[in-house]
Amino acid sequence: MEKRLGKQTVKFSKAVSLLSTAAVAGQKEAEGPLASHFDIIMENAEWGEDTWEKAESKMQKSAVGRALQKAKIDAKDIKYIFAGDLLNQCIGSTFGLMAFDIPLLGVYGACSTMAETMGLAAMSIDGGYSDLSVAVTSSHFCTAERQYRNPLEYGGQRTPTAQWTVTGSGAVVLSEKGNGPYITHFTSGKVVDLGVKDANNMGAAMAPAAADTLAAHFEDTGRSPNFYDLIVSGDLGTVGKSIIVDLMCEKGFEIGENYDDCGCMIFDIEKQDMHAGGSGCGCGAITLCGYIMDRIRNGELKNVLFMGTGALLSPTSTLQGESIPAVAHAVAISAERE
Amino acid sequence: MEKRLGKQTVKFSKAVSLLSTAAVAGQKEAEGPLASHFDIIMENAEWGEDTWEKAESKMQKSAVGRALQKAKIDAKDIKYIFAGDLLNQCIGSTFGLMAFDIPLLGVYGACSTMAETMGLAAMSIDGGYSDLSVAVTSSHFCTAERQYRNPLEYGGQRTPTAQWTVTGSGAVVLSEKGNGPYITHFTSGKVVDLGVKDANNMGAAMAPAAADTLAAHFEDTGRSPNFYDLIVSGDLGTVGKSIIVDLMCEKGFEIGENYDDCGCMIFDIEKQDMHAGGSGCGCGAITLCGYIMDRIRNGELKNVLFMGTGALLSPTSTLQGESIPAVAHAVAISAERE
Repeated sequence: MEKRLGKQTVKFSKAVSLLSTAAVAGQKEAEGPLASHFDIIMENAEWGEDTWEKAESKMQKSAVGRALQKAKIDAKDIKYIFAGDLLNQCIGSTFGLMAFDIPLLGVYGACSTMAETMGLAAMSIDGGYSDLSVAVTSSHFCTAERQYRNPLEYGGQRTPTAQWTVTGSGAVVLSEKGNGPYITHFTSGKVVDLGVKDANNMGAAMAPAAADTLAAHFEDTGRSPNFYDLIVSGDLGTVGKSIIVDLMCEKGFEIGENYDDCGCMIFDIEKQDMHAGGSGCGCGAITLCGYIMDRIRNGELKNVLFMGTGALLSPTSTLQGESIPAVAHAVAISAERE
Repeated sequence: MEKRLGKQTVKFSKAVSLLSTAAVAGQKEAEGPLASHFDIIMENAEWGEDTWEKAESKMQKSAVGRALQKAKIDAKDIKYIFAGDLLNQCIGSTFGLMAFDIPLLGVYGACSTMAETMGLAAMSIDGGYSDLSVAVTSSHFCTAERQYRNPLEYGGQRTPTAQWTVTGSGAVVLSEKGNGPYITHFTSGKVVDLGVKDANNMGAAMAPAAADTLAAHFEDTGRSPNFYDLIVSGDLGTVGKSIIVDLMCEKGFEIGENYDDCGCMIFDIEKQDMHAGGSGCGCGAITLCGYIMDRIRNGELKNVLFMGTGALLSPTSTLQGESIPAVAHAVAISAERE
């Protein structure tokens, strides 16, 4: 357990390098403020496929393909793909990644998936099991609405606390070689459920789990929030973002100007009429793989804590009257090695 | 990559010990030939809960609780639970394991989940990230039928190739200390899809992926099939079992009397009218955690290769006319260290 820090964190002893990242984004995301940071823009929700689900699979395939291309790596040299998505049985990943012919380790962490896959992929490198691994996830507004809420044709009214599932897929190539940025720590989260039952208020459901993981990260590493140039959660949205700041304050940690949430960053919320902001695995994934990584690479950011936030509900559990448990996992990314 | 063997296999350098295992089984499973090897028998499908889904969550909680009790380990000393199940958004795991207050790394590998969670949990120990990890999965006949096929009340006729989803949950406590049995190798699988579209013939859909992983394991390790006292797949059933023997023969590997399938072992197929045998994550999980581990512990088996087999379909992909991709992961278990 030489790599263990405290209760929930591991510190990697090797330099686990992020060789390349790629982001595939939908139309609405390409109309937002981060547009110039995305590698591939979809012309519409179908993207040339018969079904939205197949479009989502194509998104993962394209994100991984572009990330490999940017890193100048052949798919056959990748040892593992860690992947997952929001679709039942993770069909976005399984159908999308099949053609690469690489061992696939499927992950389910709801919208925390990008951080979970990156953490596990980093473990695979640091542990000596792989020299090259890929982490990828996706979400698609149309597949998510159909599965979790109502058919789009129904035209349901959205509540003020509702978030908009981002259409996007982000992929990362991790390597035991390379000159960074590096994944240095992985803090894994516990399932936290404070009893929120409103499936249209995910931010409130996820904030307690996010605060739990964030506090664990600071306690385990001895770092204070201001160590980071940016602490960024995946998709708490405007509601969850204000809750987590309060919860962290109660726990004795002040997160302020260096904290933001991908769900608040990815859209121009008012102009694009996004209610409480963006959500979905793809929200954190493309904000990280596009915008944030660009800022790390150009020297604007040195130390970033990226935390994926997942609401672990299903339509079945909601219909059965259950509350919404949540989980958050975090990876620390540094431009330089300590 | 010092622990890498060939394309898909890792060999653990530490002794990753299986401290304890526990198996929770349903009624029908308790009427089968392996009954005496299960730790807990459910009196009915509801098991005192309002819904079958909550019963499945209780199964995972009980399996982990019993495994911890048998190993005399406090939940607070466990660093990670690797868990997954067949339910949409893996609610069997998330609702079931919440109370343990342990970091949860969710996994989706369909019915390959037990092998995937054990492989990842073994990596967490061997990699120096954890001294104690848990791997767990479950399936429940009633929740699976409702989600994947028809409401039970519909009384649909089963085809001859149909398998019966096992009601069961198996849990394993892995440790960096202990006197074995040991997990020595983990062979992770690629997604394989030969175009089978019949969701009532999972065995045929999964056999090619299973053969692919099995062949990779023998090639990577240099072991021949007869190294193992038992090679056991999770839930190919009678149809898949006969296909994989042929496929392996074509690949130049003879697997014969030392090969069996948990789906064929767990029920008295004719007497219990089980058509093509058992299936589901729980099928491999409780056969391994109950019967097979008992045989390893009492000295009957020394070297076992356990391969979880997963069909990566969803009702959505089936309704959209897609074929059934599959994946298989394998862990090698030895009573003694090499």
